[in-house]
Amino acid sequence: MRILVTGAAGMIGQKLVQRLLADDGLGVHPIEGLVLHDVVRPQADSPLVTALEGDLSAEGAAEALIAHRPDLIVHLAGVVSGEAERNFDLGYKVNLDGTRELLEAARRAGLAPRVVYASTEAVFGGPFPDVIPDDFAPQPLTSYGTQKLIGEALVNDYSRRGVVDGVSIRFPTICVRPGKPNAAASGFFSGIIREPLVGLPAVLPVPRDVVHTMASPRAAVNFILRAATMDTAPLGGRRAVTPPGVAVSVAEEIEALRKVAGEKAVALIEERPDPAVWAIVQTWAKAFEARRGRELGFEAESSFEEILRVHVEDELGGRIPVAEGA
Amino acid sequence: MRILVTGAAGMIGQKLVQRLLADDGLGVHPIEGLVLHDVVRPQADSPLVTALEGDLSAEGAAEALIAHRPDLIVHLAGVVSGEAERNFDLGYKVNLDGTRELLEAARRAGLAPRVVYASTEAVFGGPFPDVIPDDFAPQPLTSYGTQKLIGEALVNDYSRRGVVDGVSIRFPTICVRPGKPNAAASGFFSGIIREPLVGLPAVLPVPRDVVHTMASPRAAVNFILRAATMDTAPLGGRRAVTPPGVAVSVAEEIEALRKVAGEKAVALIEERPDPAVWAIVQTWAKAFEARRGRELGFEAESSFEEILRVHVEDELGGRIPVAEGA
Repeated sequence: MRILVTGAAGMIGQKLVQRLLADDGLGVHPIEGLVLHDVVRPQADSPLVTALEGDLSAEGAAEALIAHRPDLIVHLAGVVSGEAERNFDLGYKVNLDGTRELLEAARRAGLAPRVVYASTEAVFGGPFPDVIPDDFAPQPLTSYGTQKLIGEALVNDYSRRGVVDGVSIRFPTICVRPGKPNAAASGFFSGIIREPLVGLPAVLPVPRDVVHTMASPRAAVNFILRAATMDTAPLGGRRAVTPPGVAVSVAEEIEALRKVAGEKAVALIEERPDPAVWAIVQTWAKAFEARRGRELGFEAESSFEEILRVHVEDELGGRIPVAEGA
Repeated sequence: MRILVTGAAGMIGQKLVQRLLADDGLGVHPIEGLVLHDVVRPQADSPLVTALEGDLSAEGAAEALIAHRPDLIVHLAGVVSGEAERNFDLGYKVNLDGTRELLEAARRAGLAPRVVYASTEAVFGGPFPDVIPDDFAPQPLTSYGTQKLIGEALVNDYSRRGVVDGVSIRFPTICVRPGKPNAAASGFFSGIIREPLVGLPAVLPVPRDVVHTMASPRAAVNFILRAATMDTAPLGGRRAVTPPGVAVSVAEEIEALRKVAGEKAVALIEERPDPAVWAIVQTWAKAFEARRGRELGFEAESSFEEILRVHVEDELGGRIPVAEGA
């Protein structure tokens, strides 16, 4: 099996590649080749890997990737939410035109690859109920959400016509996100866990009763593997899936931290209300029905404690530095 | 007020232009200029009119239209459903790229025109309930529906950013469609009324209990005028409106024909089941809630008899030829 991963240098892309190489295949299929693409050259130490860098939306770029004749395309590449909002042209160029070019290149090549498309819960925009049903109408309130919704529509239509065999995953917020704190408005959901675990302070800019849906990076990779290997017949014309996640309050996050890492970790969280961040967070969806996603075999954690323990296992080698006096 | 109408040579486009010229304005605004565009040169006898022909998706075409600096753009141009399904590239080029080019040209020109975008009930695809709620998730099952859904998403996002002030109308089937019988699968809804009224035979290819939602050409023009003049603030981020229509069975159509034009007209309908047509018609939506559309001031007929009488008034000069011995 030949696999193409776009956006392969991103956090999820890297974890996916590590997993594919560790599993030495996808389901029952051994990997014959793994083409990794991103704007910076993806790193992966394997003779199976071809690492490429460039702009996916540039003339001929998608064509060159499809020339590797992938059986599976995992299309993670994209301009993120904040950047797509600031840079209108770039967002449409990469998120809309880049996706369309990839689908078109597959069509011209006469392949009919499985396509796993990274969509987002941001296809939903308010007003919405506390728990968003599976058939709720997506009405994005950002350019990023709009571009992803358009990508879903294209994946649906190209799949209906047999050009590709696509599955769009509406990713929830991924938590605990490894790495450094970043400027994303959602950063604190991870930050209030990640930093205290290693003995560093973290800021909580919103009230503790804020509820949000999350899944671990490991669950995100599992979503992709499920979408890559599932029977797509039960999807019918509806290729976009809302996978499950844990709808959790900030207070529950903190309680899980207390349980796993103790009072010393919790004491590192400083509540410093930020009305600007709270204003953004209040526009976000709280929870999703995701019954269809579960029925289709997508699995995530069932508690925040589980998410936290995944982080400790996958990022901290099973250690809890703050509890060891970090 | 300067108005641009794309697709102005089409049936609705022509009726809209006649109405604008007859009303000598739009609401309280006199018309300063009316730019009509289509692939064939639109006909309109008025010194206010500039009639242009060409391909809207061609390089520079949208720019040239926007150079007329319209305050209102009624974007009716598009490749129709059957053609968009047969010709994948053409459908995307005209329906997606053409729409995007028009919005982009408005953006580059720094106008913020009202945009009335002709969308379609075909943004909905089954399975759906007998009456589709206003917040039902659009899942088109045709390339045409997909392209129109993408157009709606663009109109939403460009409106949210203040680039345009858009309203998308999800048009129901327009009936009674004047003119010659055509090959559209929906043609019989109009044909079984239009032909018998003038003493010509018509074929009914589906069972009489088929239910479908319709509005007259006059109502369609009224939808456009409403969308062009309404306060858009109540739309919020949801610029797409499902206007009302009459959900009517074929049997009710026939009864209205009997009432208005008599047995002789009804006898001209030949029931000749066509499984291919029926298979298509069974995939179509039956009825729509359209409460939001009504609340937003969109009005349509309330019975098929009313639709039929509109046809007699607007197309037959108030006469019923079959009843006069045609």
